[in-house]
Amino acid sequence: MRRLTVDLAGRPYDIHIGPGLLDRLGALLQPLRPTRLLVVTDLCVGPLYVVRAKAALSALASTEVFELAGGETAKNMQAVEAVLDALFAIGADRRSVVVALGGGVVGDIAGFAAAIYMRGIRFVQVPTTLLAQVDSSVGGKTGVNHPRGKNLIGAFHQPEAVLADTDTLRTLPPRELSAGLAEVLKHGLLADADYFARVRRDLPLLLACDETALAEAIARSCEIKAGIVARDEKESGDRALLNLGHTFGHAIEALTGYDRWLHGEAVGCGICLAADLSQRLGLLGRADVDAVRQAVDAARLPTRIDGLSRAAALESMRGDKKAEAGEVRFIVLERIGCAIQRTVPADALDATLAAGGYR
Amino acid sequence: MRRLTVDLAGRPYDIHIGPGLLDRLGALLQPLRPTRLLVVTDLCVGPLYVVRAKAALSALASTEVFELAGGETAKNMQAVEAVLDALFAIGADRRSVVVALGGGVVGDIAGFAAAIYMRGIRFVQVPTTLLAQVDSSVGGKTGVNHPRGKNLIGAFHQPEAVLADTDTLRTLPPRELSAGLAEVLKHGLLADADYFARVRRDLPLLLACDETALAEAIARSCEIKAGIVARDEKESGDRALLNLGHTFGHAIEALTGYDRWLHGEAVGCGICLAADLSQRLGLLGRADVDAVRQAVDAARLPTRIDGLSRAAALESMRGDKKAEAGEVRFIVLERIGCAIQRTVPADALDATLAAGGYR
Repeated sequence: MRRLTVDLAGRPYDIHIGPGLLDRLGALLQPLRPTRLLVVTDLCVGPLYVVRAKAALSALASTEVFELAGGETAKNMQAVEAVLDALFAIGADRRSVVVALGGGVVGDIAGFAAAIYMRGIRFVQVPTTLLAQVDSSVGGKTGVNHPRGKNLIGAFHQPEAVLADTDTLRTLPPRELSAGLAEVLKHGLLADADYFARVRRDLPLLLACDETALAEAIARSCEIKAGIVARDEKESGDRALLNLGHTFGHAIEALTGYDRWLHGEAVGCGICLAADLSQRLGLLGRADVDAVRQAVDAARLPTRIDGLSRAAALESMRGDKKAEAGEVRFIVLERIGCAIQRTVPADALDATLAAGGYR
Repeated sequence: MRRLTVDLAGRPYDIHIGPGLLDRLGALLQPLRPTRLLVVTDLCVGPLYVVRAKAALSALASTEVFELAGGETAKNMQAVEAVLDALFAIGADRRSVVVALGGGVVGDIAGFAAAIYMRGIRFVQVPTTLLAQVDSSVGGKTGVNHPRGKNLIGAFHQPEAVLADTDTLRTLPPRELSAGLAEVLKHGLLADADYFARVRRDLPLLLACDETALAEAIARSCEIKAGIVARDEKESGDRALLNLGHTFGHAIEALTGYDRWLHGEAVGCGICLAADLSQRLGLLGRADVDAVRQAVDAARLPTRIDGLSRAAALESMRGDKKAEAGEVRFIVLERIGCAIQRTVPADALDATLAAGGYR
């Protein structure tokens, strides 16, 4: 088992990575001494793992399970209120703990419910997708979607611990595994050229669920993300770099109703658009843009999505959280391994969208 | 104008107290440089002050107004979602600011909406009731009620500034003024015996809306509360002392459906019950219990509320946020001017409720 400490101002927490963690939940969470536990999961993950999780946790405290419908379209305030009602129903108090067992959506909803139940109780992430293991369970962002856009309602709430059981990735659909690799590639691109090169080389192993390759990638990705989050917990500066590919990606998701593409797929395409934009700003060379596109393609992610409306994409990006007074700032690549924040001229953005197949 | 700085870890903010502040909102909030402003108010306060507030703020940034129905029964998630929708409708971004203009309910709803809109935007409190000026606008507690109890859903979110315009107290109904005095008395009782004596002496002046007496009481009460909050922002220790009278008070409100008694009235009665309980624990003498009761009575607050169900009150208090694993901790008085936290034997609690008119 690997262990990584996320050292956030005043409250560090551990990320455990390795096989077989699910059966050790009770032992690993023992220091929290919870009065009660609520495992929040969804209809996909619940049937696979909730019996084992509950068995492991019941030794620690009275444990109940709440199953969400799951999926990005169900990530709304109604789901949060359902979790809150479940917490009230089991008589959860301030020393109770929420355990999020599932992908990023489960973690976002359960974490947000924990953040606002009695003004904040503790929660633990047990991410069961690669995306959640490398991305959404690190950094304390929780929240839900609003008809106006993704993740627009939420809170910063750090977990007490993250337990990434690599065994759970064996039951992951191939599309979901690729979606997770989008964030892995992103971490390399924005912070570590060597890591990007290594991931590119290891993509066949990663897609084949090689455990050593996966554990190494999860650990390094968490390390990169955790390092950035620790420097900037409230997203005033550096943390925005983690949004490489995301301004484009969020717009793709919004324009396709959140159900056509997985978040990681939209980000994969978004990374290609960000690379193209970086070239138009005179930052990245043609060969690097091609390398990005080839890596995204080799991870079995879309490098372009044709036919989306350019006007609607621009409108959506202007409404994104990162917009200030209507002006959109993009994360672009200065070079592979180094991302920067830039306000982008309208014509460069327009050209990138046109070249990317928008109409 | 008096100014007081609440010095919270890493982010101090100012409380301004005095007459005529409403017309100076634009100047006082100028340092925030907001992109847009949303004034959240209610149907009571809006007609009285929103035109002046909007005029003063419009010089600073585009200002819109959202009116809540108001009242403790409307303090729910639906109200929060309505404020969130209003923020989306005006295109509020991360540099926009919410201005809560009204009593504690408006501040709690608007502050909570600001806490979760895009994972937190800035907000300013402009409290227009004595209760809100001395209590709810200091300390960063925001939130709403749940059918299971009061303030059970919420967040800690500190305002950027609090502007307490004492002129607004002139339009306050007498019952509301008395309700605010319950918290003023509480602050003296739990932290400063001299202040308690001074408030007792000044009660006729305070009830007559004497501006000097009010400004002095608001400033000292904010100072006491701010001092406690600064020592303990997340309510792990000292901050609980501010709940003197509140465990009883919350149960009274819950049992009477939140509409029979004002929060401050329930707290007034709760303070008398806490004093009685303190005597039963051998802490407070008879004369002091009488002094507490006389002060509450002189502030025109109920010292007892007959006929409530003892069983239902106990049940409600066990469900309170401060309960841990079903055990209720009470704030009691060691002496006048000094409160402490205690787990209370069932028989003493029972005797206090019986003596207080519960059946």
